[in-house]
Parts: sequence; structure tokens; C-alpha cells
Amino acid sequence: MDLKVLRPYTWALLLGLFIPASWILDLVVGPGVHVFAAAGIGIIPLAWFMGLATEELGKHAGPGIGGLLNATFGNATELIIAVFVLFSSLEETTRIAIVTASLTGSIIGNILLVLGVSMIAGGLRHKTQVFSREASGIQTSMLLLAVVGLVMPALYVRSIGATPLILEEMSIGIAAILLAGYAMGLLFSLRTHRDIFNPVTEAAETPQWSRRFSLGVLLVCASLVAVESELLVGSLEFARSGLGFNDLFLGVIIVAIIGNAAEHGGAVLLAYRNKMDLSVAIATTSTTQVALFVAPFLVFVSYFTSKAMTLDFEIFELVSIALSTAVLSAVASDGRSNWYEGVLLVMVYAIIGVAFFFHR
Amino acid sequence: MDLKVLRPYTWALLLGLFIPASWILDLVVGPGVHVFAAAGIGIIPLAWFMGLATEELGKHAGPGIGGLLNATFGNATELIIAVFVLFSSLEETTRIAIVTASLTGSIIGNILLVLGVSMIAGGLRHKTQVFSREASGIQTSMLLLAVVGLVMPALYVRSIGATPLILEEMSIGIAAILLAGYAMGLLFSLRTHRDIFNPVTEAAETPQWSRRFSLGVLLVCASLVAVESELLVGSLEFARSGLGFNDLFLGVIIVAIIGNAAEHGGAVLLAYRNKMDLSVAIATTSTTQVALFVAPFLVFVSYFTSKAMTLDFEIFELVSIALSTAVLSAVASDGRSNWYEGVLLVMVYAIIGVAFFFHR
Amino acid sequence: MDLKVLRPYTWALLLGLFIPASWILDLVVGPGVHVFAAAGIGIIPLAWFMGLATEELGKHAGPGIGGLLNATFGNATELIIAVFVLFSSLEETTRIAIVTASLTGSIIGNILLVLGVSMIAGGLRHKTQVFSREASGIQTSMLLLAVVGLVMPALYVRSIGATPLILEEMSIGIAAILLAGYAMGLLFSLRTHRDIFNPVTEAAETPQWSRRFSLGVLLVCASLVAVESELLVGSLEFARSGLGFNDLFLGVIIVAIIGNAAEHGGAVLLAYRNKMDLSVAIATTSTTQVALFVAPFLVFVSYFTSKAMTLDFEIFELVSIALSTAVLSAVASDGRSNWYEGVLLVMVYAIIGVAFFFHR
Repeated sequence: MDLKVLRPYTWALLLGLFIPASWILDLVVGPGVHVFAAAGIGIIPLAWFMGLATEELGKHAGPGIGGLLNATFGNATELIIAVFVLFSSLEETTRIAIVTASLTGSIIGNILLVLGVSMIAGGLRHKTQVFSREASGIQTSMLLLAVVGLVMPALYVRSIGATPLILEEMSIGIAAILLAGYAMGLLFSLRTHRDIFNPVTEAAETPQWSRRFSLGVLLVCASLVAVESELLVGSLEFARSGLGFNDLFLGVIIVAIIGNAAEHGGAVLLAYRNKMDLSVAIATTSTTQVALFVAPFLVFVSYFTSKAMTLDFEIFELVSIALSTAVLSAVASDGRSNWYEGVLLVMVYAIIGVAFFFHR
Repeated sequence: MDLKVLRPYTWALLLGLFIPASWILDLVVGPGVHVFAAAGIGIIPLAWFMGLATEELGKHAGPGIGGLLNATFGNATELIIAVFVLFSSLEETTRIAIVTASLTGSIIGNILLVLGVSMIAGGLRHKTQVFSREASGIQTSMLLLAVVGLVMPALYVRSIGATPLILEEMSIGIAAILLAGYAMGLLFSLRTHRDIFNPVTEAAETPQWSRRFSLGVLLVCASLVAVESELLVGSLEFARSGLGFNDLFLGVIIVAIIGNAAEHGGAVLLAYRNKMDLSVAIATTSTTQVALFVAPFLVFVSYFTSKAMTLDFEIFELVSIALSTAVLSAVASDGRSNWYEGVLLVMVYAIIGVAFFFHR
Repeated sequence: MDLKVLRPYTWALLLGLFIPASWILDLVVGPGVHVFAAAGIGIIPLAWFMGLATEELGKHAGPGIGGLLNATFGNATELIIAVFVLFSSLEETTRIAIVTASLTGSIIGNILLVLGVSMIAGGLRHKTQVFSREASGIQTSMLLLAVVGLVMPALYVRSIGATPLILEEMSIGIAAILLAGYAMGLLFSLRTHRDIFNPVTEAAETPQWSRRFSLGVLLVCASLVAVESELLVGSLEFARSGLGFNDLFLGVIIVAIIGNAAEHGGAVLLAYRNKMDLSVAIATTSTTQVALFVAPFLVFVSYFTSKAMTLDFEIFELVSIALSTAVLSAVASDGRSNWYEGVLLVMVYAIIGVAFFFHR
């Protein structure tokens, strides 16, 4: 193999050295702020390579499935971390609070930060970018289904007062409906209405990587992201005391930014290259996957722990998700974007960040 | 008359035998679960015939007026039942709770269940169906007016605490505004902007029934639906103890499904026949009629009873209506539908149903 | 100068006599209901002339900048009044309550009343009017940013309970984000994406007034509006006791109607002349300017008074702003309007008016 083909990836390979560095630091010095930083930097090139591999796979399979693959790999990490937290030795209510906070952070992070930065990155180069309003409209509607599923238990608890048993039964019922909605959504986007998520215009480009090689890069990078994320979570407590953030802010903002770095890198890169269809697909399908698949899946998984997780999110989390959905609808429903729409998304994220920063 | 023309209606005529059966059961055995079931089945063919008659009238008059007619006949039933309940010997607060629950159930049932099942039925045969986004947009805006009218009294009671007298005065004021909005909406859709609700493409088809015969079928069927609905309501209490549902679930889900069977049958049939304009018109105009006409009308009617009904809906009902409006806007604003959008609507209905099922 | 050119302005010049009349009444008789009435009538011709001047400037500069200019002059008045109230000798909480009420009234007044009456005035002459859905979409998204910025502090206070210091810090942080959002919005609408707010079709018309003369009329009228508004505010207390309105109703409804008379007159006139792009631009940019510039600016200004103003609006005000944004989105997102959409906007305003009328 001619090593010259690696030349465009030089910076990424250099940053990639932080991956083994984080392992050595963790083994030799032990968890701490330095491991946190090294693992964080190490994730950046991984996200970049995942973006490349996704783009290549997208050329083979079309943006819909490319977006789904990327979202799957990005959210597999989140799912693994959440399962790990649920089965950890942490205090029962803390465990669930961290999981709902990271789910919330992932949802609003994808809608506001990933999509916002993508629209800015793309909008600085291209005056107006277009994407499938039909695809993004379906994703918005799916997200709205999740919002209804999260509002009802919270309203139930706050307006009537619920016994824990009834709340659990209600959560199981709603989680089953959300999972069914997600499954049918896959049937819709991958089978009956592939073309909505798979515009012909994109299919024309020639892939540079083979399907197999792209898939291999995706798998290896996703595994490494998982390893690095675990180091990050393990050193979070040390970083927290060192940096002075509260729990909710850490869960919703910091963990979610790092957890979404994969989508982030990929989506921004694609927006910059004016593949806005694929970029929006990554941000939105990742969001709906967390809301309609990861969250209800964890409700079922939690039944094997000492305390069941319900869909009773904190009111702050709920309102943030609902407002983010409204903003997504306002910004994406016309299938066009520009840099200022990206700025608005990032600013909504900043306001929610300020609110969570002052929380408690 | 050649009886062969009745052949396509065989199944409906057979099911229609449940109508006299319900009368005989009620007279001979007395009210109970059997009357409940017989009357419920008897309504199905009536709804189907109303759908046919509406379609025929629609060919004569265009989908806007056809939709209005069907909605009127469907909601006349609901209006009669509600008036009957308001003047019944039930306990004062129970009376009003049942009426607001059935109004809520009718609104969300039309938006989520009727429109959802229509989009599924149509979407299984046709990949994408189109309808007037202008007409559905107006209906969504009208519904939003009703949401504002319902939010304000509830907010008033919950944030400030209201004397019953002030709440009544406020409800009267808002009810008058909603009725004026409805009246001007009729002027708009039937006179100044007929064409929005009356696309030229539909007008081309030849009616098979005369205008007079269609109207006759509509009137007879509507009367029979009213009779059967009364039997249903009369046997509700027995069915409730037999089936173990709570009051709110019964009012919002069961009564509303049966009360909307007429729209349901007609709208689904029309969607299946790819007359999506008329199908969406039935579901949405029926909704706005309940919200902007039936509900405020009942506020005025209730003044002749021992206790005035106000527009202070339960918080669960209010949130369900507001979220349904948001979902309608997300799904219908592009003037296109597919089976999965129908699935999403039905699933939002299912989640609200689960919540009401566990209520109290 | 040939005085015949003044002939079309006769009625305005006659009404303009109420301006010196209000001064004489204030000086000779002192503040009271009569000054209130005279100043209110005096503002009408000023608003009309500002509308004319804005239209002329719009011909020179295009609707985007024309709308911005008009909004600026209209809101300069509001800003001056608010600063005056903040530094007045009124009781601390009353001061801030009046300012938030007038900001709320200005936001919902522009969206619902100004835009609504414009759509009615234009719609009675023109069956369907079109305007830039891209421009109004951006304004809706900007307004949504403001809604998020107002929801978070209110939620913080109500769900967790906040120390005044944390609430102040949070308000400062959010106000800074809103101001940054507004500044970038100007960059967007005046520089990078001028064309969205500046359609070519409008530019073709020949201005009748020179740029300099239009600007002069705008400046003089704006100054006179400011003077009259001050007389109005000074005589408000007398009018209040004379007419029996509560404080919130006065602030939100009466002050806001008068404060927005300038935009009102201009926007309605332009809609009537079928310049819907400019009319919608006046109403929406005025709204976003109040929400993203005037409100956060006053948060910073209030630091120089004895009590800092926070972004913790009353729940009634907050819900009214949020619902108005939803209604704006429903009505304006298709870039088309008719008289009935105007009626719906005005009716939502009427319902909120009824609610505020019964407040406390």
C-alpha cells in the first residue's frame, strides 16, 4: 500500500496519537483531568474518520441509510454508556438522573448543536443550502411523538400524583408504543419510501472507498470511540471537581457534546461539502433514534436492575426537548438553510446551556 | 327498482340488522353490555352509508361543502348527546366533566384517529397522497384559536385562582369570540374563498346519486346514528361496570370513537379511494366545528341548567388538545401524506389513550 | 411650494391639530383624560405620515430596510418610554411590572393586532396576498429564540426556586445571547442575505419623495410621537381611574396599541396597497426587535437603577407570547394571507385581551 494516500489524513493520524496516550495516562497515572482531556482530543479524529466512512457508504447506499448507519454507530456508544451507568454501583436515583440527563443532552445536542454548527459551516461557504424537507419533516413528526410520550408521564405525576407502580406501567406502555413507532419508521425509510431519504442526485457520485473498507473503518472507529468514551466517563468525577460543574450541566452539556462528537464531526464535514441532505439526516435520525429507540429500550433494560427507569423526565429536560423540537420545525420545515439559521440553533443551545449551568 | 343495485351494499345491509336488534334487546332485555355492543356494530354501516352519501354530495358541491355537511351530521349527534347529558339528572360536576371529556375525545379522535387511520388506509394503496395544504392550514389555525381560548381560562384558574363568577364571565366572552370566529370561517370557506376548499380536479366526476337522494340518505342515517348513540350512552354505565374502564377513559376514548364512527367511516373510505382532499376536510372541519362551535355553544346552553359550564378544561385534556394540534400541523402542513404519517398520528392517540387509561 | 400637493393629506393635517391641542391642554388644564384622548388622536396622523415615509424609503431601499427603519422608529418610542419608567419614582416592582407588560403588549400587539388588521385590510381588496415566506420564517425563528430565552428563567423560578442573584446572573447571560442573536440578524438581513428581505419586484417602483425628505418626515414624526407618548403615559394614571382598567390590561393592551400605532398605521396602509412584503416586514421585524433588542437592552439598562430587571416574565405574559409565536408560524409560514387569517389573528388578540381584562 502506497503510504502517500494517507497524506490528506495526516492531521487526523497525529491527533489519533492521543488515543494510546489516554490509555497510558489512565494505566500509569490513573483517572483524572489529563485522561479526560486526552480521551476528548482522541475522539476528534475518530469522529472525522467516521464522517468520511459514512460519506463513502452514503455514496454506495444513499444518504438515508448512510445517515442511519452513522446515527447507529454514534448512538451505540451512548447506549453502551447508559447501560453501564444503569448497572453501576451508583445510588439508584442518581443513576437514572444521569441517564435521563444524557438522553436529553443527546437529543438537544443533535438538534441544536450538531445541526446548528453544520448549518453555520455549510452556510459560510454556500449562501443557501437545500435538503429534503420531506425527510426532515418525518423526523420532526417522529420527535413530536416522543415529546408526547415524555409529556404524558410528567403531566401525570405533576397534576394527579402517581403511585410508582402506575408510573412504571404507564412508562412500559408508552415505551412499547415508541419502539413500535421506531420499527415502523425503519420500514418506512429503508423499504417503502427509500427514495425520500435517498435522492437520486447524490447517487451519481463515485465512491472512493469500497463498501467493505468503509464499513471496516466505521466499525473500528466506533469501537475506539466506545473505549475512549468509557475513559471519559471514568474520569468525569475528577474533571467535575477540578472544573466545578454541577451534575446536570455535566450530563446534559459536557457528556452529550463528547458523546455526539462522532455525529458532530461527520455532519459538519458533510454540510461543509454541501451534502446537506446527508448532514441533516445524521443530526435528525440520530435524535429520533435516541428518543424512540435508546430511551424506551433503556426503560425495558432497567427492569433487570434494582430500580426501574420511568419516562418521568425532569421538567427542565422536558421543556428543553419540546422547545428544541419547535425550533427544529421552524428552521428545517422549508428544506433550506443558511448560516443564520445555524446561529439561531446554536444560540437556543447556549440559552439552555446557561439555564442548566445555573441549575441547582 | 332493480334490487341488483343493492349488491355492493350487501355487507352493510347485513350489519344494519344490528340496528333493530339493539332496539329489541333494549326493550326486551333492558340496557346492558349487549345493547352497547349491538348499537356499536349498528353504527358501522350507517357511517359507511353516510360516507357514500357525502362522497356523492361532494361530487355535486365540491369537497369543502361535502366535508362540512358530513362534519355537521357527525357533530349533530355529539351535540344532541352533550345537551342530553347537560340536562340529565347526573351530579353537576360529573355532567360537565363528561361533556368536556367527550369534546376533548372528539377533537383528538378526529385529528389523530380518524385522520391517522385515513392516511394509513389511503397510504397502503397510494405511495403519496396529496391534499390542499391551504385548506388544512386554515383548519390548523382555527384549531389554534380554540387552543388559545381553552388555555387562557385554565391558566387563569391555575396561576391566579379565579372566583367562579369571573371564570363564567371570561368563558362567556371567549365563547362569543370562538363562535364569531366560526361564523366568519363559514363565510370564508363557503363564500369568499370557496375555491380553496373546492378544487377543480374533483368537480369533474359524475355523481351516481342525485343531490336529493344523497341528502335523504344522509338525513336518515344521521337520525339513526343519533338513536343508536342514545342507546349506547344509556347502556354506558352498565358497560363500564362490566368492562372496568374509568370515566375519563370512557368519555375521551370509547364515547369519542363511537361518536366519530360516522366521520371515521366516511373519511377512511374516501382516503382509500384517493380522495384525500375530502377525507382531510372531513377530519379537520369536524374538529374545528367541535372546538369553535359545539364547545362554545354548550357554554351558552349550560346557562339554562343548574350549573354553568365554563371553558376550564382539565389540564390533561388541554395538553392533549394542544399536542394534537402541534402534531396535525407537523403532519398536514405540507399537503402530502403517506402511511407512516398515519401511523404516527395513531401512535400519538395510543399514548394519550394509555395516559387516560391510567388516569385516577 | 405649491400647497395643492398637500391636498391628499388634508385629513391628516386636520387631525394633526390635536398635537398642539394636547400640549395646550397639558400646560393649561394639567394631565387628565382629555390630554390622554388628544395625544392618542394626535398620534394617528403621525403614524400615517410615518407609513408614507417608510413606503417611500422602501422604494429607495427595498422592503427589508424600509421595514427595519419603521420598526426602529416605532420601537425607539417604546424604548424611551421604558427607560423613563425604569428611572421613574414609581415603586420598584411596579416599575418592572409595567415595563414587562408593555414589552409583552408590544410583541403580541405587533404579531396579532398589527399583522391581523393588515391582513384584513389587504384581504378585503385582494383575495390572496403573497409575501416572502423565507423572510417571515426567519423572523418566526428569531422570535422562538426569544421565547426560549424567556421560558428558561420563568421555569427556573417556578420549578426550582431561584435566589434573586442567580436569576439576575441568568438574565444577564441570556440577555447577552439575545443581543448577539439580534446583531447577527442585522448582519444577515442587511448584508449577507439582503435579497431575501429585498425582492426585486418591489424595487421597480419610482419613489415620489426623495430619500432625504422621507428620512426627514420619519425623524420629525418619530420625535412628535415620542412627545405625544410621554403625554399619554403622564396622563395614564388619570385615565386609568377614570376608565377603570387594571394595570396589566392598561400596560399590555392600551399602552401597546398606542405605542404601536406607528407600525399599525404604516403596515395597514401598505397591506391595503398590496405591498404585503413590506407590511409583514414591519410587523415582524418590530416584534423581533422588541424581543431580541429592547427587552435584553433594558435588562442591562436596569443595572443603573435601584433594582435590576430580570427576564422573569409573568406566566400569563409568557404563555401569550409563546402562543402568539405559534399562531404567527401557522398563519405566515406559507407566505400567503387572506382576510380570514387576519380575523383569526385579531381574535386570538381579543381572547388574550379578555384574559388580561379579567386579570386580578
